[in-house]
Amino acid sequence: MRQIDGSICAPRGFKAAAVFCDIKRLGTGKGSEKQKKGDLALIVSDRPAAIAGLFTTNRVAAAPVKLSAKRAAQDFAQAIMVNSGNANACTGATGMRDAREMAQLTARALDLRERDVVVCSTGRIGVAMPMENVRCGIRGAAEKLGANAHAVAEAIMTSDTRPKEIAVEIEIDRTCVRIGGICKGAGMIHPKLKSLHATMLAFISTDAAIAPAVLKRALAIAVEQSFNRISVDGDMSTNDSVIALANGAAGNRQLVRPRAQFQEALNFVTLELAKMIVKDGEGVSRFITLHVRGARTAADAERVARSIANSVLVKTSWCGGDPNWGRILCAIGYSGVKIDEQKVAIGYSAANRRAQARTAPAVIAFRRGRPTDVGFAEFTALTSQPEFDVHIDLHAGKSDTTFYTCDLTEDYVAFNKGDVNDPSALGG
Amino acid sequence: MRQIDGSICAPRGFKAAAVFCDIKRLGTGKGSEKQKKGDLALIVSDRPAAIAGLFTTNRVAAAPVKLSAKRAAQDFAQAIMVNSGNANACTGATGMRDAREMAQLTARALDLRERDVVVCSTGRIGVAMPMENVRCGIRGAAEKLGANAHAVAEAIMTSDTRPKEIAVEIEIDRTCVRIGGICKGAGMIHPKLKSLHATMLAFISTDAAIAPAVLKRALAIAVEQSFNRISVDGDMSTNDSVIALANGAAGNRQLVRPRAQFQEALNFVTLELAKMIVKDGEGVSRFITLHVRGARTAADAERVARSIANSVLVKTSWCGGDPNWGRILCAIGYSGVKIDEQKVAIGYSAANRRAQARTAPAVIAFRRGRPTDVGFAEFTALTSQPEFDVHIDLHAGKSDTTFYTCDLTEDYVAFNKGDVNDPSALGG
Repeated sequence: MRQIDGSICAPRGFKAAAVFCDIKRLGTGKGSEKQKKGDLALIVSDRPAAIAGLFTTNRVAAAPVKLSAKRAAQDFAQAIMVNSGNANACTGATGMRDAREMAQLTARALDLRERDVVVCSTGRIGVAMPMENVRCGIRGAAEKLGANAHAVAEAIMTSDTRPKEIAVEIEIDRTCVRIGGICKGAGMIHPKLKSLHATMLAFISTDAAIAPAVLKRALAIAVEQSFNRISVDGDMSTNDSVIALANGAAGNRQLVRPRAQFQEALNFVTLELAKMIVKDGEGVSRFITLHVRGARTAADAERVARSIANSVLVKTSWCGGDPNWGRILCAIGYSGVKIDEQKVAIGYSAANRRAQARTAPAVIAFRRGRPTDVGFAEFTALTSQPEFDVHIDLHAGKSDTTFYTCDLTEDYVAFNKGDVNDPSALGG
Repeated sequence: MRQIDGSICAPRGFKAAAVFCDIKRLGTGKGSEKQKKGDLALIVSDRPAAIAGLFTTNRVAAAPVKLSAKRAAQDFAQAIMVNSGNANACTGATGMRDAREMAQLTARALDLRERDVVVCSTGRIGVAMPMENVRCGIRGAAEKLGANAHAVAEAIMTSDTRPKEIAVEIEIDRTCVRIGGICKGAGMIHPKLKSLHATMLAFISTDAAIAPAVLKRALAIAVEQSFNRISVDGDMSTNDSVIALANGAAGNRQLVRPRAQFQEALNFVTLELAKMIVKDGEGVSRFITLHVRGARTAADAERVARSIANSVLVKTSWCGGDPNWGRILCAIGYSGVKIDEQKVAIGYSAANRRAQARTAPAVIAFRRGRPTDVGFAEFTALTSQPEFDVHIDLHAGKSDTTFYTCDLTEDYVAFNKGDVNDPSALGG
């Protein structure tokens, strides 16, 4: 496997385009002042593609999520219509009608059937889609289709500060196969995709020939070790979606059962995208990898990791570069997992920069029910870095997990605290 | 029932004292600069008192919690020894030995049996108790016993900005009975006392004559509607404890079964104390009362309330005075409770200032799957106040709950973010 330039247009047979159609209704005056990144985008395969999709488990799912979840359950689809600026969530029957119209208009513009189009939205909650703008946008995007992956990665951004793109190349049965991906994140990041939670959107394209059922299974595995292992603020969005299209343009013999090379590459692409979301989270100043080991079950390992990753006190201590293992231990204690304080060990290490490298050995802070003799300065040398790892060993069993999270900063609060004078703050 | 001056020394037969013995080891130089509030305190009944206690459900419980939980299971006790500055948590076998020694020394100084003394600690985690200081402190406190409830309320403070005290008087069978209470809170507030979570300590004294079993049941009921209905940051501490002593000095005929007057008064005392904790939470700028109605079960109502109260995005929006019902709906959606978005209603009202008054009718923001037509300004007029109420109706059943919480501010983060140059930040 090797990483290559580009993202969703790196695999053969995919085109994309983004346009600005002022979905947030900034108006021309205000809109023209800032550089207009797109807010509506289209990703299209030149032939029917196997589809897989995972969506938020939030019971308040946006209209496009309800629509697209059904379409992702099909075997094939061909286009993804996506907008930022409006989530089309909590919009009742009008919202569902608008989502469907977006699919219909896209299908018409591309000469596809409506069912071949999935729709994704992110942005403000509880505001009707400005359909005049959207109609123009869809026409414009369809006319502009080309190798515009980067513009699409920008168009889906909301509070993200940078686009998130990746592509890799592998060989399957002597055929070169590519996988590309883009995503957006920033706030409401704690996905649990059927099993996600957050407003995160991720789109994966590949030119692999792969049976739909095999793609669906591969995507579920990949998401489980990537998007479902991250948390920025512990909030789960109404709009989270991960969608993969595989169009077979590479010409490999169709994969009809799981293939390790493909899975590894898909795991890599999704994990790299997931980490980009955490690193670009709202106000984030530190990126932390949690290694939880020795849990009795995989579910226990995950509960402990989520309890730490979502503890406001733990996250604020990280903001100051404070190795506050006391708060970590406390969060383990209320995770709901049966633990024996005498057996728990907590340590720190420098972040692992290379994907395949072994994790550095941890400097242990707490073991056998009490603090070790290691000096405070040895920990702060690690925790004052922009990236570091925390190691928890429960010594209760053989299950492990890895979780990716970040600190909680004053900037996060400032960014999200809303403004009584600005109703446009009313979004998620 | 009427509220009276004072707190734990208002009921007859209770004495208290607080001393400063530098448990945080500030040293004489640093300590002398700031006003020395006490850090070790003693509450004593002049005769054996029925005891009831509820403690943190965190599996990492501090040594004094483990010790006192056993003693609170007895029928009677007579003294509470409490210190701030050191939590005696994550301190291994030494911690347990120190907690026992604190009980022994107190018993000796007061001529009691060791089992008559319960011990509570709050403050830094993972640091051994400075026992020389504590030994002097216990002697000093025993010598100073008197009507020093206010000094005790100050001594137990950590990051609290003000002492929290209350007392009430009721008549039971024509006998005047008093109940007094003090508490401390500030950070790690999300109690779930067997059912509590947080470093919150609360001490209740009453001169009622009441059978131990009846007191235990009454305290459990009172805590369930007060300390278990609050959340500052969603973190559950290792040291939470609520302890009540009832010494019978009022001379009423012993209560051998539940009595409504007593329960109401105890409910009032605990709820007022609980609200004081939220209002004085770290960095708190707004106090919010959540009314969740129409849940299928009481557990569902509680889950929805906790999901909202612990959502970082909801809490930060409140900080800005933003009526962000979209984030509230989102938090309801991921609470794990089965809800029908079409049936959920969300509204706001002004805070209810008087305990017995009816809650003001809510101005509804979201209903039947979409926003109402009420203007944004009508909501911000409510949510920009220092106190307001949020109303959720799930329309799924008949269970209700009320929950007390607050916003999450930049000051909270600044306060808790720790300092790489200050190991004393290592606390919970």
